[in-house]
Amino acid sequence: MSEFFSKKHSSLKAYTPGEQPTGREYIKLNTNESPFPPSEGVRRALENEADKLQLYPDPEYKILHKKAAELLGVPAECILMTNGSDEILNYAFMAFGDADTPFAFPDISYGFYSVFADLHGIPSKKIPLKDDFTIDPRDYENIGMNIVIANPNAPTGIALTLAQVEHIVASNPSHVVIIDEAYVDFGGESAIALIPHYNNLIVTRTFSKSYSLAGARLGFGVASADLICDLNTIKYSTNPYNLSRMTAVAGAAAIDDNDYYMSNCKTIIENREWTTSALRELGFSVIDSSTNFIFAEHPDLDGEELYLALKDAGILVRHFDTPKIKNFNRITIGSIDEMRALVCATRDITLKRRTK
Amino acid sequence: MSEFFSKKHSSLKAYTPGEQPTGREYIKLNTNESPFPPSEGVRRALENEADKLQLYPDPEYKILHKKAAELLGVPAECILMTNGSDEILNYAFMAFGDADTPFAFPDISYGFYSVFADLHGIPSKKIPLKDDFTIDPRDYENIGMNIVIANPNAPTGIALTLAQVEHIVASNPSHVVIIDEAYVDFGGESAIALIPHYNNLIVTRTFSKSYSLAGARLGFGVASADLICDLNTIKYSTNPYNLSRMTAVAGAAAIDDNDYYMSNCKTIIENREWTTSALRELGFSVIDSSTNFIFAEHPDLDGEELYLALKDAGILVRHFDTPKIKNFNRITIGSIDEMRALVCATRDITLKRRTK
Repeated sequence: MSEFFSKKHSSLKAYTPGEQPTGREYIKLNTNESPFPPSEGVRRALENEADKLQLYPDPEYKILHKKAAELLGVPAECILMTNGSDEILNYAFMAFGDADTPFAFPDISYGFYSVFADLHGIPSKKIPLKDDFTIDPRDYENIGMNIVIANPNAPTGIALTLAQVEHIVASNPSHVVIIDEAYVDFGGESAIALIPHYNNLIVTRTFSKSYSLAGARLGFGVASADLICDLNTIKYSTNPYNLSRMTAVAGAAAIDDNDYYMSNCKTIIENREWTTSALRELGFSVIDSSTNFIFAEHPDLDGEELYLALKDAGILVRHFDTPKIKNFNRITIGSIDEMRALVCATRDITLKRRTK
Repeated sequence: MSEFFSKKHSSLKAYTPGEQPTGREYIKLNTNESPFPPSEGVRRALENEADKLQLYPDPEYKILHKKAAELLGVPAECILMTNGSDEILNYAFMAFGDADTPFAFPDISYGFYSVFADLHGIPSKKIPLKDDFTIDPRDYENIGMNIVIANPNAPTGIALTLAQVEHIVASNPSHVVIIDEAYVDFGGESAIALIPHYNNLIVTRTFSKSYSLAGARLGFGVASADLICDLNTIKYSTNPYNLSRMTAVAGAAAIDDNDYYMSNCKTIIENREWTTSALRELGFSVIDSSTNFIFAEHPDLDGEELYLALKDAGILVRHFDTPKIKNFNRITIGSIDEMRALVCATRDITLKRRTK
């Protein structure tokens, strides 16, 4: 830290992204990427974009917003496209939080929520999950704070029902409720259908998981036109041209190929069910997942030990050194071959452990 | 504005980017883009990137930082690559400004500086330019605030000498001095050479102008490793994967083709000198420019009137409805054909005006 760094940041602890190894080739099951490449349409759309890069993009990204509006069945002015969903979340914390308007979120969830709150000097309240790792909607009833909930939640993979989400939104009419649907395409129920009925609801999404575009950095928020207007004020006060031409074009082409991506999601769900069964047969406790990852622990294996042994075997999974979940690993669902390799390596590790 | 928007933003006035027209084809001389497309190397580098978009980028963007370090002659840990230079500027305001640490900058300069300050609740002091639109370095001597100066300045196009910049940096050892070098490749002297000697200096740059990559969104900051570490803390607290894979690859390839871009800058400087002479012959007062634009006014023509008449003739330039510079237009230097078209249309407008 330099002598010039603002004192307000002196205790700020930045987010730590999952490992992105360079060098050794790993089977990467640690950052919830898709095992499927982008669609042919995305590839084709990008072919001629290099020739136009000397020109700024349209800062309103009209084509992209129009296509997303058609796909989602909401007006284009109810959508804001951002540089990954981290950016729309950051905008929302900036727009709607302040020293007098705290944010509440589950104690076990996406680790970035508390970073955003700390960065912007917004008090936050971490609400414990229940012992079975589920969120109790009653904990969020009329809570007098803004709320952000990942649904399905990460890293647990557990989803609230739409009725439970609506209950939380409806019981907090004076505060903003953000539902972070990064993983919704793998088994959750989207709250986008509620947006015409609640002026305090923001749904955030990403193209990084179900749309195979983690490397293109594209996310978005859906909300009432008024809330999107506020979020746009933040965008135009930080980075008006927040998406590259290439990212905007890739996103629009991905929406055109929606069927391809939804079919990939079906395959990932099948692979998830297969992996869940296989790991349970090895003695793991695996939480039923509505996402493209599973959260699993073994009674005889330390979580970090398994993470390190798998890494040694060339497979990266994500271990969080966090109370309550230290014994778990979050395992991304990849191709069926990758999942077979995972189960095989895990079997070896559990067997070795037993013969010790 | 929604009822949920934080009161701290109630008077926030977002930045207005230059028009990016869709529909009618204009000769675009309003957003300081390059008339030259990206190099062959950039095109080639992007060809295979679509196939990897399902994977997150390396959040450290090591290859890009290494190449930039070699080009600039500084260690890689003294560089931070961002989503356009707006992002590095925003990070710097967030990192080093607060309610007790104001920012000073010229009253006529890049309009975003005051937006960043207002957004983050940082007091700011606008220091008037001299009557000839130059910056007086004595106004910034030992000023007791952080400083941001565009050098060359926009929209005036006037540059401080390196000795003047060093004087400002040296006389403010307890505060950060940001030199925004967006336009430096068109005639300014870079302050990057000072970085080993001053721990309070940050130089910001962009690939949008001289490197023909406005559509790819790439900028960066250069500073002591300590300051870059603080800026990285902000990055990892807002958007760790701030660049798409495509942008990172395009930037690295552009650096490899540095000679092509520097040769384009030479052509733009020649076109600028030709345009400056031609407009002066038409009676314009044109400030000597060290950038890829000129700032010009005509004694008999209202600035907005000229802007509108040129737009009507299919040529977009930038007019700022701001005191002191209302009568000027900022005209981007494009290809020689575009500049001929500009001079021709301007001659028609001045002649029509005289015959009225």
